[in-house]
Parts: sequence; structure tokens; C-alpha cells
Amino acid sequence: MELMKKSLEMHEEHKGKMEIKSKVPIEDIYDLSLAYSPGVAAPCIEIEKDRSKVYDYTIKGNTVAIVTDGTAVLGLGDIGPEAALPVMEGKALLLKRFSNVDAYPICLDTKDVDEIVKIVKAISPTFGAINLEDISAPRCFEIEERLRKECNIPVFHDDQHGTAIVVSAGLENALKIVKKKKEDIKIVINGAGAAGIAILKLLLQIGYKHIIMCDSSGVIYSGRPNGMNPIKEQIAKLTNENNIQGKLDDALVGADVFIGVSVANLLSQSHIQSMNQDPIVFALANPNPEITFENAKEWGVRIIGTGRSDYPNQVNNMLAFPGIFRGALNVRAKDINEAMKLAAVKSIASIVSEEELCEDLIIPRSLDERVAIVVSEAVAKAAIESGVSQI
Amino acid sequence: MELMKKSLEMHEEHKGKMEIKSKVPIEDIYDLSLAYSPGVAAPCIEIEKDRSKVYDYTIKGNTVAIVTDGTAVLGLGDIGPEAALPVMEGKALLLKRFSNVDAYPICLDTKDVDEIVKIVKAISPTFGAINLEDISAPRCFEIEERLRKECNIPVFHDDQHGTAIVVSAGLENALKIVKKKKEDIKIVINGAGAAGIAILKLLLQIGYKHIIMCDSSGVIYSGRPNGMNPIKEQIAKLTNENNIQGKLDDALVGADVFIGVSVANLLSQSHIQSMNQDPIVFALANPNPEITFENAKEWGVRIIGTGRSDYPNQVNNMLAFPGIFRGALNVRAKDINEAMKLAAVKSIASIVSEEELCEDLIIPRSLDERVAIVVSEAVAKAAIESGVSQI
Repeated sequence: MELMKKSLEMHEEHKGKMEIKSKVPIEDIYDLSLAYSPGVAAPCIEIEKDRSKVYDYTIKGNTVAIVTDGTAVLGLGDIGPEAALPVMEGKALLLKRFSNVDAYPICLDTKDVDEIVKIVKAISPTFGAINLEDISAPRCFEIEERLRKECNIPVFHDDQHGTAIVVSAGLENALKIVKKKKEDIKIVINGAGAAGIAILKLLLQIGYKHIIMCDSSGVIYSGRPNGMNPIKEQIAKLTNENNIQGKLDDALVGADVFIGVSVANLLSQSHIQSMNQDPIVFALANPNPEITFENAKEWGVRIIGTGRSDYPNQVNNMLAFPGIFRGALNVRAKDINEAMKLAAVKSIASIVSEEELCEDLIIPRSLDERVAIVVSEAVAKAAIESGVSQI
Repeated sequence: MELMKKSLEMHEEHKGKMEIKSKVPIEDIYDLSLAYSPGVAAPCIEIEKDRSKVYDYTIKGNTVAIVTDGTAVLGLGDIGPEAALPVMEGKALLLKRFSNVDAYPICLDTKDVDEIVKIVKAISPTFGAINLEDISAPRCFEIEERLRKECNIPVFHDDQHGTAIVVSAGLENALKIVKKKKEDIKIVINGAGAAGIAILKLLLQIGYKHIIMCDSSGVIYSGRPNGMNPIKEQIAKLTNENNIQGKLDDALVGADVFIGVSVANLLSQSHIQSMNQDPIVFALANPNPEITFENAKEWGVRIIGTGRSDYPNQVNNMLAFPGIFRGALNVRAKDINEAMKLAAVKSIASIVSEEELCEDLIIPRSLDERVAIVVSEAVAKAAIESGVSQI
């Protein structure tokens, strides 16, 4: 709890973590006449004539709005837009620090899907991309889907795709160690929120075949009488090929991989022992994972990743979003599409060299400065090849 | 035109004029654990418990949104939200440079009054105040009025009040030189847009009695058959006590002060000669004033102010808005009310000492670093005394 106290003191001392900095001097009348009246009319006139020039003369091309409604913040839930602001500021610092993207928090005092879509579209002239953040499921799916269609700048819900990309990269490297093939393995995803569903979709797209998804009511299957909705019915169609019914315990029998985006401390020794040989576990509940690193190792988990920075294999969105936004902005991508996400997966996995790769290093470390560079190049290339670049 | 070329080059070189800067280091895992996960949960939890703590732990209390719809930018008119962005960035630099306020441009892709009001309210959790900018009249009046009522942070339309405040400060000092009293003089305001109407309202409030307002159809009077609207009918009731009808020429006969917020080069030698002794002229059309400085001096204008930085007495909003926002933010004012605007007028006028005061120095120079400090202190004091401070 010392850390919490320190963090509170730090936030209070600085009154927030970010500020505006001028890129040009404002010291005399001449400076003023260039940056403001009357000289500023020159870029205004050029942009009025050709709107795409906004990328040449303004901050737009390097700028991301971090948009939240404060409904699903960290593990804290619906804490409101004001209480979400420290997280959004933190995210802006990471974008600046790791990929020199200028990001700004926009915390919305509305939870209405239509209003959020309308507002984000309306504020988009200032921004080169939109990072949706900490918006609760299932609203986040509709908001992202509609904005991706209706905006002419990329819209990316990091809680979904960032997590899915890093998990997929880690899994790709983990399978190299245990020498299993993606087509053959059985995966159990526990938690059907934004992250869980995004992980499922990305894994299916990559070519994983045998996935079972569980939520708090147990295994998701077609026609389950309780706790279903249209999205879960869709999940049921894409997963659970043998149509098993039951609890997480039943799903785990013979599984090669467990991916938890759920709650702390739900995996027992018998769960692990029921899994296949060389089990791989991503226990991503925050701050306390579904199984501790120590228990996992003791009970025979071969490879474990968590969300924590104090253990190996930290599954952290930081490995994905700085490079993804950098790459998308660099080529003025009009979308962050599946090809770009897959390129991010491959590039994150590739950073861990064959020599480095081991049970305790399947994904790069969070502060590895190489990551954003490599990811941005791969994402930009994928954007160009898939036809969404606008330069 | 050299200046326009230079400005374009400067904007292109830097791709916009502002960037984000971190106030805290992000170099190691410990830094990260304070500024982001897991430590960031601490301020989030505190703010969720008591929303007012957002001022203690986040950027909100030092942050202004500069909101425009791009409908009345400089003298360029309705050029759209993208083309307005260079101006909004410039304004943000001035706020940072002169009063250390962090401001961010929000350029809206909508002209609908209801939508603008809704959007500004929705994005307000991130911001400590709203600066409305370059929104065309009469929409700007309704937008500001509604937002002032419905938001719990100050909302200030600078094109109205910034100009009105600086003109009022200049006029106060000019009258000291010509030794006339505000109750006695006759003022003609030419131009009934946002700035003209705001100037009228502030002058009436300060105690000026004899004002005539003209627009492109001539003198505004009750029941004028052409070019009237509800706002101009209201103006007619507040001005033109003798109910004169006619053109600007008729209004100017015997006037002590001309205030132009209209178009270039409309004052002739005979206009000036028809005015009272020691005429005072504020010719604020931009970039070319209603009368040139040289002509005004040659034809007998005693004191002339323009919007230009290359002549004496530059009537520039820069003298007002940095100090006003600084003062309002410093005391968490929930409004920028009339008492605060009047305090700004007095304080700007007071900066020109009795020794300095002369025909060519009735208002401080735009880059005078003392101004924002003095104005912010006066505005903060007025906020406290008028009961809108929240600390």
C-alpha cells in the first residue's frame, strides 16, 4: 500500500501528469505574427482549400484522442469520467514516451452509445486517431464498430485489441517452447468481457481451432438457458465444437492453454492437474491474477504470463498500442484493420530472439524501447499493403 | 506576403505548434507503477469517492478547452473545423506562454447549436474551463448563454468578451487624456456582430450613456424595416436615445468615440471632421482597419487604436484572456461573471502608469509580461468577492 500512497502524493504534487508544450518560440512580435495573427491565416487558407492539408500544418497527424466514459476503468468498474482521468493521462504519457504520439484525454459525461458516437465523430477534426478506453462491454463493441464505419480516422479500442494482440504474440512464442501446433491445441478462455471476446476473435483469425469460452455461468454453449445474449450466442457458434456443457472445471480437462481475463485466485491445483501436458497459463486478472506465479510454477504450469510487472511475462498493452498508433499515424491509415493487428502480433513475437526465448521470456519486457519501433514499422507496412494508407 | 510564406513554412516544418509533455518521469518499472498501473488506481479511487478531488490529482484544474466550429475564423469566415485548427493551436500557445494554462483545441464538425451545447457539456470532465472561439453570431450568444447555465465550469466566448474588455480598458485611459467623462460622451459602434454587441453591453454596464450602434444597413433603431432581428431590436432599446435614423455618417456627427468592428477603409476625412473635438477611434477591422493609423493622425484623430501589432495601441485579446482564465482557474471559479470582466477592464487599464499614459500608449503592449499576472489577481479577487469561487 506504500505504492498507493506514493502514487497519490505524486499525482497531488504535480496536479496531473501532463502539460502542453510549445514547439515554436513566442518571444517577440514577429514570433507572434507567425504563430498567431496575422500569419496564422496562411495555413488556415490552405486547409480551407484542401482539407487534407490539415495533416501538413497542424497537430492532427500526430494526435490521438483517448476517449472514455469511465464505465470500466482498471478493475474498478464504472467510476465515472472524472475518476477515469488519471488513467487516461497515464496512457497519454506512455504514447508520448514510447512512440512520440501526442495524446489527449477526453472523458465523457455520458454513457449513451448514440451520443458517444456522435461526440467522437464531432471532435475528430482535431485528431489523427481515436483510442477508445475503459468503456464497458457490450457497449464498447457497438461504439467501436459504428465509429470505425463512420469516422475517416482510425478508431481502436485498446482494451479489446491491445490485450488480444499481446496474448496472441505470447502464445505464439510459448508454443515454440512446448513444441505444439496452433491447429492442435485446446484453449480455454475464461471471461467474456471486451478483452476475452477480442482474444477469442483474434485467435480464431490466426488459425487456432479448438477454443472453449467460459463466463461466470460456466461454459458458453448454444441455447444455454441463463446469462446468454446475442454476442454470447455468436461466441457459442464459433467455439466449443463438441458442445460441452458445464463449469470451468469441465472445460479445463485436457486443455493446453488457459487464458483468464476474469477474477483473482480461481485456479486450483486440481484445475492445473486436469490440463494437458506442459500447460500454458495467461492469468490476466488485475492486480491479482487467476493463479499466482508461485502456485502456477509449483503446481506444474510450464509457462505463465500475468498482468504484473513484478513477475516474468507481463502481458501489457504497452507492448502494442504505442507502436500501433505510431504506425497508423505515420501512413495516415484510415483504419486499424485486421492485417495491421496481425502484423502487430507477429512483430511483438519476433522481438524475442530464438536465443532469448525461454519459459520466463515469451514476450518483450514492457519498457523495451525496441518494441514500439518494430511494431510501428510492421503496422505501417501492413496498412500500406492492405490499402488503408492515405499517403 | 513574405510573412504568410514564412508562417506556412513554419507550420509545415513543425506539423503544428504544440505537443504533450510529461510532468513525471517514465523510465523504469517503478515510475510506471506510480503513473500508470497499478498505482494510478489510488487517485481514481479518491476521485470516485469525492468528485471534487479531480482538481487535486489531475490536469483538470489547469486545463482549458478551446472550442470552435470554425464558422467565424479571423476575418476568413466559415472555413470549417480543420482550417480553424491553426488558430486554436496559436491560442493554446498564448495561454501557456503568458499564464501557464494548458489549453487544448477542440474543433467541432457540427454547426448545430443543440449539438454543440451537448458536446461541450459531455467533454467538460477533463477541463477546468471552456474558451469558445470563432463561432459565428448570433449562434455564439445562445451557445454561450446555455453553456454558462448548464456547465459547472466557466464558459467564456473570447471573441465577445476579450475584445470588449480590452476596448473598455483603452477607452477608460483615453478619456483621461482628453479629459472627458464617460457619462457625457457620445459613442458610435459600427458592426453588430459578436464583438460589437459584447462591447455595447460592457460599455453600458460600465456606465456609458450615449451610444449609437450601426450595422451594414446603417443606424440601428426600433422598428427599422430592414436587417433587424430580435437581438438588434434589443440593441435599439438600449441605444440611440434620440432615435435617429440614417447612415453611419449621420451617427458620427458630434461623436466623441468611434469603435469599428466592421470592414476596412470606411472612415473618410469628412467622417472624422464631423466628430466632436479630440476624437477617439478604435478601428479594429483585421487585418486592415476602418481607417489607417496615418490617415487618422493626419485628419485629426487624437487617439487611435487598431488590431495591428505594427502600430501603437494594439487592441488585442491577448491582454485579457490569459489572465482571465488564470484567475478563474486559480480560485476554481464556476463562472466568469460580470464582476470578473469589470475587474479585468480596471486591471488592464491600471497597468499603464500615469507617467506612461499618452496618446500612443493607452493600453499595455501585447507582450507585456505583467499583464496576465495583474489581470489574474484582479479576476480571482472579483471571483471570490462575487461568490463564484469554489475554494
